[in-house]
Amino acid sequence: MALIVQKYGGTSVGNPERIKNVAARVAKYRAKGDQVVVVVSAMSGVTDNLIKLAKEIMPLPNEREMDVLLATGEQTTIALAAIALHSLGLPAVSLTGAQAGIVTDGVHTKARIQNITPQKIHDLLNEGNVVIVAGFQGQTTEGQVTTLGRGGSDLTAIALAAALKADLCQIYTDVDGVYTADPRIVPGARKLEEISYDEMLELASLGAKVMQSRSVEFAKKFGVVFEVRSSLNENPGTIVKEETKNMESVVVRGVSLDKNQAKVTLVAVPDKPGVAARIFKAIGDSNVNVDMIVQNISHGSGAPATDLSFTVDKPDLLKAQKVIDGLKEEIGFGKVISTDKIGKLSIVGVGMKSHTGVAGKMFDTLAREGVNIDMISTSEIKISVVIDLAKGEAAMRAVHAAFLG
Amino acid sequence: MALIVQKYGGTSVGNPERIKNVAARVAKYRAKGDQVVVVVSAMSGVTDNLIKLAKEIMPLPNEREMDVLLATGEQTTIALAAIALHSLGLPAVSLTGAQAGIVTDGVHTKARIQNITPQKIHDLLNEGNVVIVAGFQGQTTEGQVTTLGRGGSDLTAIALAAALKADLCQIYTDVDGVYTADPRIVPGARKLEEISYDEMLELASLGAKVMQSRSVEFAKKFGVVFEVRSSLNENPGTIVKEETKNMESVVVRGVSLDKNQAKVTLVAVPDKPGVAARIFKAIGDSNVNVDMIVQNISHGSGAPATDLSFTVDKPDLLKAQKVIDGLKEEIGFGKVISTDKIGKLSIVGVGMKSHTGVAGKMFDTLAREGVNIDMISTSEIKISVVIDLAKGEAAMRAVHAAFLG
Repeated sequence: MALIVQKYGGTSVGNPERIKNVAARVAKYRAKGDQVVVVVSAMSGVTDNLIKLAKEIMPLPNEREMDVLLATGEQTTIALAAIALHSLGLPAVSLTGAQAGIVTDGVHTKARIQNITPQKIHDLLNEGNVVIVAGFQGQTTEGQVTTLGRGGSDLTAIALAAALKADLCQIYTDVDGVYTADPRIVPGARKLEEISYDEMLELASLGAKVMQSRSVEFAKKFGVVFEVRSSLNENPGTIVKEETKNMESVVVRGVSLDKNQAKVTLVAVPDKPGVAARIFKAIGDSNVNVDMIVQNISHGSGAPATDLSFTVDKPDLLKAQKVIDGLKEEIGFGKVISTDKIGKLSIVGVGMKSHTGVAGKMFDTLAREGVNIDMISTSEIKISVVIDLAKGEAAMRAVHAAFLG
Repeated sequence: MALIVQKYGGTSVGNPERIKNVAARVAKYRAKGDQVVVVVSAMSGVTDNLIKLAKEIMPLPNEREMDVLLATGEQTTIALAAIALHSLGLPAVSLTGAQAGIVTDGVHTKARIQNITPQKIHDLLNEGNVVIVAGFQGQTTEGQVTTLGRGGSDLTAIALAAALKADLCQIYTDVDGVYTADPRIVPGARKLEEISYDEMLELASLGAKVMQSRSVEFAKKFGVVFEVRSSLNENPGTIVKEETKNMESVVVRGVSLDKNQAKVTLVAVPDKPGVAARIFKAIGDSNVNVDMIVQNISHGSGAPATDLSFTVDKPDLLKAQKVIDGLKEEIGFGKVISTDKIGKLSIVGVGMKSHTGVAGKMFDTLAREGVNIDMISTSEIKISVVIDLAKGEAAMRAVHAAFLG
């Protein structure tokens, strides 16, 4: 008998029929004698609709009240899911985040889980119930309703798995697992049987979008092994866990392409201490997130100067340009070149730590494809390059073929 | 400075525009310096839609889960109402039933309020907030979500007014107040300035439908004076309060016609002890509510026997007939005559206690209209007659003219 936490996203519980399918899947695990805790999101579309209602009343609604409002989405699903299990003859009890003992801080709309008191869930499980918990929500010690922000239901599931010392945590979604690359772009992409937390984190932050980074970080911190798998079939998914010696034999776990970045280059920035700090502090103050930063020696004549390039999320490009324009007189750089026609191509793998020549092979592959490299950034387990967006997908296929083909 | 509890029903908060109208009305009271607690229902249609979703999954869903499900309706409205007040620059805080300190018993879908701890509401009011409380819901001492059943939001408002020792409780609805008769049937009907709890109770249970009986009973028990008024205009409504000497000068406060009853007559029931008990116990056991009961001497020959007539809600007629059919052999009565073509016409007024000849005047009025009386039932402040449905509205107009014209 295992204790399993299963999380189902908005699409998987999008209508009564799908909620019944979820119940049928849970019933199979119960029939094997497993104890099951089910974490559900709001039905797809519900959260967006609630946000729309609020914004019709006021463009920037109060965050405490948004939490009270949005928490109703998951509360609706838990009741319907419990009823669906009852319809199969299975005892089931729904719990809101508060009832499940999920205590958070008071930062509304992006609260952090502070602790979970899992006794009630254990009691209900031991009485033979399936326990259905509302994802995405919690309660402060003062009884305020809070929500956990984007990807919050994944976080609920992983935090519950940690608190309950579950044997397994399954994240059900509409993809079969984590792939070596996006199969829509790379036909030869393969589903991974397993991946390390760090690799998953790099892929998540690179836009692989299966899960939000902080859920993976939480799982890593508390050693929660979880499986990403599809709610549409019975195929095994991808196991995400601490890296093993064995994993290092694979140099590159996956290839990702982030098309959602834009690049800004400041030409001939005076080469003095504090200039870069001034620039990036100003950008940070405007709430624009900077990803890659590269600084080269400028090719101009005159006083010592450098060229400074950085990337930001595409929707933030105009905001970043505005900040830079405001600094021009004070700092005295030359022209500013911006483009959103870039792609960030990355290879990720814990095996890079113990293998040499990986960067060289990647750059060589790109050269053979006639792809020029604009920027390079590396970490212990990742190499990213910024290239021309138009050549992004072809470059991705070539790199995938070279390392994983 | 007064403390006012205002309750707005589903139609009054049916969309963002109407929620803004509610906020504007609250703002007017705040501008006068009043403290305002607002109780809201679910937006119209929301509760029905949730019930439909649940029944798509299972025809008879579990009541605990229905409470978890339905409580989301009011929770949605409180957040939107708070946001609407913010949009007018007014500080406002929403509270679920649980957060407002409304403790109920554990009878799901029709819980009773056990006590209210109003300290939090007082604190929020004293900080200058409008406090918005979800109607219709509460929490057990064990933290289970409960709902109060039909008319639950009125009950929340009246119970809060009692617990907060409010100066005034206003029930906003889509009618202007309580009328001497339904103005759609009786053109000369007038809005009442005031009415006693007991008169309101008789009118409510007779189908005047402005409010559920138990809210009025609760108000009577705790001496909560409340006003029924329209959310669509600024007209004063009807004040409902303990009867005063002055009220007794009016013999008849109002006339009502209940078209939703059906009549069953058992002919030649053996006139022995225990027979009536046997019949009405069987009907009660089948959850059919019996309203009027009249027993006459039977005109047949043979052993001592009586004719027994009673009325039930129209939708329960078939069920009642089935129960009666099942008893026929055991009890041995003659034929059974049923009809749903009846109307129950009533006059209500505390003044009847101190005035004589009221019944005679009513029966005389009906006789002049050519209306035959099938059944008669009286209480201290009410006289009801069952008549032919086809003549119901004309009879109502005639009686209204006789007493209130």
